[in-house]
Amino acid sequence: MSAAPPQQFTPTPRTTLKRLAARGTFDRSAVHAVLDEGLVCHVGFVLDGAPVILPTAYTRMGDSLYLHGSSGNRMLRSVASGAEACITVTLLDGLVLARSAFHHSMNYRSVVIFGRGERVTDADEHARSLVSLVEHVVPGRGPFVRPPNREETLQTLVVRFPIEEVSMKQRMGGPIDDEDDLALDIWAGFIPLTLTAAAPVDDPLTPPRAGVPDHAMQYRRPSAGA
Amino acid sequence: MSAAPPQQFTPTPRTTLKRLAARGTFDRSAVHAVLDEGLVCHVGFVLDGAPVILPTAYTRMGDSLYLHGSSGNRMLRSVASGAEACITVTLLDGLVLARSAFHHSMNYRSVVIFGRGERVTDADEHARSLVSLVEHVVPGRGPFVRPPNREETLQTLVVRFPIEEVSMKQRMGGPIDDEDDLALDIWAGFIPLTLTAAAPVDDPLTPPRAGVPDHAMQYRRPSAGA
Repeated sequence: MSAAPPQQFTPTPRTTLKRLAARGTFDRSAVHAVLDEGLVCHVGFVLDGAPVILPTAYTRMGDSLYLHGSSGNRMLRSVASGAEACITVTLLDGLVLARSAFHHSMNYRSVVIFGRGERVTDADEHARSLVSLVEHVVPGRGPFVRPPNREETLQTLVVRFPIEEVSMKQRMGGPIDDEDDLALDIWAGFIPLTLTAAAPVDDPLTPPRAGVPDHAMQYRRPSAGA
Repeated sequence: MSAAPPQQFTPTPRTTLKRLAARGTFDRSAVHAVLDEGLVCHVGFVLDGAPVILPTAYTRMGDSLYLHGSSGNRMLRSVASGAEACITVTLLDGLVLARSAFHHSMNYRSVVIFGRGERVTDADEHARSLVSLVEHVVPGRGPFVRPPNREETLQTLVVRFPIEEVSMKQRMGGPIDDEDDLALDIWAGFIPLTLTAAAPVDDPLTPPRAGVPDHAMQYRRPSAGA
């Protein structure tokens, strides 16, 4: 058996926060919690010297993030090629309303990962990552669906990205106003925000006997309780 | 009076969608609606040859996006320097549950802007952008707050980014399953997602006479009704 991974990620020059360092953490469980709650990541790669940022779905297995998509996807091909990339996941938790315009802020948790990806060629890892992707987005959905067939599997490029050179920032709670502003007759506080699911909408071709499953009816994200 | 801007942005090689072109649009009002509904953008810049992506707040005035922050902020300084940057705003509208794992998808609207930013030096534009930032995030909040004083203004770097080389992608509605899968006894459909505000939380130091204003009590994002 391998030893348990260290509880903290190791900072590097580019993951060391230059400003507001108190908002940073390298805690492995905190990083994993953000990645497990998020649905969309933003992937950055460099094309002809210029940065390109595109949103995409992802999943986490252990200390790797997995992206997937069509084998023609330019962003995925860039990450799969091993070129330097950056993946950022941001959860917006609230709006901070201060007495001064200056001290308005947002509550958030964000994870920034630097590194180089690699195409997944192992058939078993490829298959497990596709199951994990469905389960990440809709926990409980996996066993309900028709699994990928051979052709779909061949069409799907999967890229593994190491969660290793990583940092997390977060802000929570109310405003931090200047002392002099506290006497002002201005309401201050924060507005919590959450991504909320509405009632599922049936596909018109769904057979009536296929009732809406719990994973759709009671959909909610796992939360670290922030 | 200047002529009305064209209703469509002009595609360039890097904003021309390579895949799923039917999901793309260059419509100016659609692009503006996404930017006006979003709260956080992801800014990409290149540092030592590698991409860096960080989340930040923004506002839009006309055909420019404005970012702001401390004058020590490395990302802002990079964008202000006129180096190539990319700004992406993504709104997640729902989860698409297909009969096959393969056809699972997400409903979203995303805007990707390429370009070079510029530091705002005009005092009037600088001041207006700070008001716009507060109003963008919390419509109605502007008149309530203490405006920035001279020192705060000097500390705040504002960067203008042209909304010019831009494209938008969107997906909406239910799953598109393979013909052969439609007979399967599997519920399919989609789960709408929205960013929802909970009740505002008072700062403990707020004087009781300062009641919770409507802009906090009834907070919601402007919506294009997608």
